[in-house]
Amino acid sequence: MTKCRLLVSHTRFSSNPRSSRKSTSSTYSSSFMNQTIGILGGGQLGLMLIQAGIDWNLRIHCLDPDPQAPCKDLCTQFTVGALTDYDTVYQFGQAVDVLTIEIEKVNVDALEALEREGKRVYPQPHVIRQIQDKRTQKRFYQAHNLPTADFILTDDRAHVAQLAQDVPELLPAFHKLGRDGYDGRGVQRIATPADANKAFDAPGVLEKAVDFEKELAVIVARNADGEVRTFPTVEMAFHPELNLVEFLFSPADITPAVDEQAQAIARQVAEAYGIVGLLAVELFLDKQGKVLINEVAPRPHNSGHHTIRANRTSQFEQHWRAILNLPLGDTTAHGPAAMVNLLGDPGYSGPAQYEGLGTLLAMPGVSPFFYGKAQTRPGRKMGHITVLDASVAALKEKALLVKDSIRVISH
Amino acid sequence: MTKCRLLVSHTRFSSNPRSSRKSTSSTYSSSFMNQTIGILGGGQLGLMLIQAGIDWNLRIHCLDPDPQAPCKDLCTQFTVGALTDYDTVYQFGQAVDVLTIEIEKVNVDALEALEREGKRVYPQPHVIRQIQDKRTQKRFYQAHNLPTADFILTDDRAHVAQLAQDVPELLPAFHKLGRDGYDGRGVQRIATPADANKAFDAPGVLEKAVDFEKELAVIVARNADGEVRTFPTVEMAFHPELNLVEFLFSPADITPAVDEQAQAIARQVAEAYGIVGLLAVELFLDKQGKVLINEVAPRPHNSGHHTIRANRTSQFEQHWRAILNLPLGDTTAHGPAAMVNLLGDPGYSGPAQYEGLGTLLAMPGVSPFFYGKAQTRPGRKMGHITVLDASVAALKEKALLVKDSIRVISH
Repeated sequence: MTKCRLLVSHTRFSSNPRSSRKSTSSTYSSSFMNQTIGILGGGQLGLMLIQAGIDWNLRIHCLDPDPQAPCKDLCTQFTVGALTDYDTVYQFGQAVDVLTIEIEKVNVDALEALEREGKRVYPQPHVIRQIQDKRTQKRFYQAHNLPTADFILTDDRAHVAQLAQDVPELLPAFHKLGRDGYDGRGVQRIATPADANKAFDAPGVLEKAVDFEKELAVIVARNADGEVRTFPTVEMAFHPELNLVEFLFSPADITPAVDEQAQAIARQVAEAYGIVGLLAVELFLDKQGKVLINEVAPRPHNSGHHTIRANRTSQFEQHWRAILNLPLGDTTAHGPAAMVNLLGDPGYSGPAQYEGLGTLLAMPGVSPFFYGKAQTRPGRKMGHITVLDASVAALKEKALLVKDSIRVISH
Repeated sequence: MTKCRLLVSHTRFSSNPRSSRKSTSSTYSSSFMNQTIGILGGGQLGLMLIQAGIDWNLRIHCLDPDPQAPCKDLCTQFTVGALTDYDTVYQFGQAVDVLTIEIEKVNVDALEALEREGKRVYPQPHVIRQIQDKRTQKRFYQAHNLPTADFILTDDRAHVAQLAQDVPELLPAFHKLGRDGYDGRGVQRIATPADANKAFDAPGVLEKAVDFEKELAVIVARNADGEVRTFPTVEMAFHPELNLVEFLFSPADITPAVDEQAQAIARQVAEAYGIVGLLAVELFLDKQGKVLINEVAPRPHNSGHHTIRANRTSQFEQHWRAILNLPLGDTTAHGPAAMVNLLGDPGYSGPAQYEGLGTLLAMPGVSPFFYGKAQTRPGRKMGHITVLDASVAALKEKALLVKDSIRVISH
C-alpha cells in the first residue's frame, strides 16, 4: 500500500503539475518524507536548507566541487564534483527523487535531460537558464512588460565603449557581466565614455543607472499547484564600496502604494517564469515612486535570512514546501526585524577572529549566525546577524549598535 | 596567537568558573567556534541541539547505542556505543573539548573521571547523578527547602505494600521508579492498599498524589559565570491514558502571583544544583494556589520545543550558550504559542503514514516537526506541532483543530 501511494504521488508530481490543481488535501500523503532530495551546491545556502529540512527529517544529498563545503558533514550523502559538468550533474540527479539548486551556475543541459526523463527538477531548468544570464533575464522582463531599467545588450568591451559615445543618455550606467557575476562582482559603473575601459570584455548588459530612493526585495514562492506567496517587502542598505548588503530592514519603510507595487511585481515575475521554488526579486524604488526590477535569483537569498528568526515560515522551509508541492507556509512576521551582514574587516586577511562577541551575544533580540569560514578577507561574508525589536525606531538604533559591536579581524 | 587564546580560554573554563565572573566581554573570544562538543545520546533532542548548533557552525560528536540514531548523519562524527559503559563514555569524552548530554541515563563515573582530568562536562556529573535517580532528586528538594509533594523512599514492592497499609494518609499516591523511568513509564498510581501489586519491585519513591489544578513547567538555564535565565512558564495538558504531554500552552494561564512562584522556584532549583546547562522544571499548581516541584530534567525538554518557533532564543540555543559559558539569550516570546505532540494513533502499529498532512500544512501559523520514525505504535511520539496565533483564545481553538487534523496510522 505504501509503495502504491508513493507511485501515485510520483506520477502526479512528474507528469503535468498543472493537472493536479484539483487534488484533494489527502493526496498530500507522507510520501515526501520518504524521498531523497538533491541540492546542486553545498554552500551556506545549502546548509541553511538542510537545517530547515531537519524539521521534517528530509533526506538530502549535496553536490559541490569543494571537499570542505559547508554541507559536507550535514547532508545524508555528499558528492564532490563540478556543478558545471554534464555527467557529474546527470549522475548525481539520477540518484534522487527531487533535484534543486542553491546556486545558479550549474549545468542546465544535464538538468534538462533529467527533466525529460521525468525527474522533478525545481526550479525548472528553463527558468534557471533564463535567469543565470543577465541578458536573457533583462529581455524576459521586456517581453513580459515587467518594469526594469533601460538597457542595451553588449557583446564586448569595444561595444560598450561605442555605446558610451553613441548613446550618452544611457549614462551613468552599470555594465553587468551576462554570466557568473555574484556578490557584487560582475558589475562596473560607467559614468563617462572614459569609464568604458572598466567594462567587461564579454557578453553583458549596459543598464541605465537608476537614480533610486531605496533598494527593496521581495521573496516569493510558487509551488507546482500554482499557489504563490510572498514574504513582506524588505529594504536593503548596501555597503558603499563592497556592493554587498550591509543592513536589511523588514518591513521596508515605504508607502502602502509602493509596497503594493513591489508585492505585485514579485508575484508577476514568479508567475511569468512559472517557477516552482523560491524566487528572490531585487527591486529599485526610483525617485518618482516607481518600482523597477533590478535582478532575480531562483533560490533562497541573503535578503531572506532574517525570516529564520522573524517570520512564521522561513524562506528555507518555504523553498521545501514549494518544490515538494506542499501548501505554502504562512509568511507573517513576528514583528520588525533587521539583518546585518557580518563582513570581514577591511585591512585584515588571515585566520578569522571575532572581536566583541560577548557584547553582541548579550544584546537582547540579537541572533548571530556564523558561517565558520576559517579565513577572513576584507568584505568577506563571514556570517549575518538577525536583530528583533518591538519598534522600528529601536530596531534601527539596535542594528547600528550591533554593527559597531563586532569586528572580524585577524592577528 | 590563536593557539594562545585558546589555551587561555581552556584554563578559564576548567579551573574555577566562579572566579571568572568579572571577566570582560573580550574574553568571550571566538574560541568556542574552534571547539569540538560531544553529546551523549544521538536521539531527537540531540538532533535538535545539532540543528541549533548549525547557526554557529559548531563541531559536534555524538555517541549512541543505535547505529540508526536520528543524529547519525548530522553530527560531525558519530560513534556507536553504550552510554552506560564506562570505557565507551570515557573514550568518547577524551576526543572532545566540551561534553554534554541529551539523556540522563549515562555512565556518570566516566564523566566524573573526565571532569577530574579537567574536561568541561556540562551539566556537571554530580548534578546528573543527583537527578537521574528520583530518590536523590526528592531528597535534594527536601534538603534545600524546595516545595515538593510529600514522599517516602521505598526499597521494593513489599515495602510499598506495607506503607500503603501503615501510612494511609499518603494515598492516593504515585509510585515512581528511582531510575530509568521516562515518557510516562516508571510511574504507577497507588490509590488503595490493593494497588500495591502494581508497584515497582525496585528502589523507588512513594509520593502523595497532588490534587493539582494545572501542570506547569519552566525551563531555566545557567552558565558557568552564574547567569540564570528562565523561559516563560508554560502549562501542559497530559493525555489521560498515556501520561504524555498532549497539549502545551505558552504562556500558562495563571495569575501573576502563581507565575512568580513558578519562576522563582525554577531559578532556586537551578541555583541549588549549581547546574551549568539547561534544567527543565516540571511543576504542579495545587488547588490552594501553591506551586510544587514534580521533577526536573538536566537537558532540553519536550516542554520547550515551542521555543524554536515562538521565542527569540530557543531552548537548544540556550543550552549551547550555557555550556559554552556565553551570555544567555533573550527568552522573550513572539506571542502566545501552543505545542501539540504528534502521537501514534491507538490501534495502529506498523509503517507510519500521516493522514491529513495537506490540511495541517495549509493552516496559518502551524509548524509541524516530523521525527522520521519509520514505525508507528499507539502513543509513540512521532513528532510535534508548534502553533502560533495573535490571541490566546484563537490559539486554543487552533490547537484543537491541529490535533484533529492529523493522524499517524498504518495500513
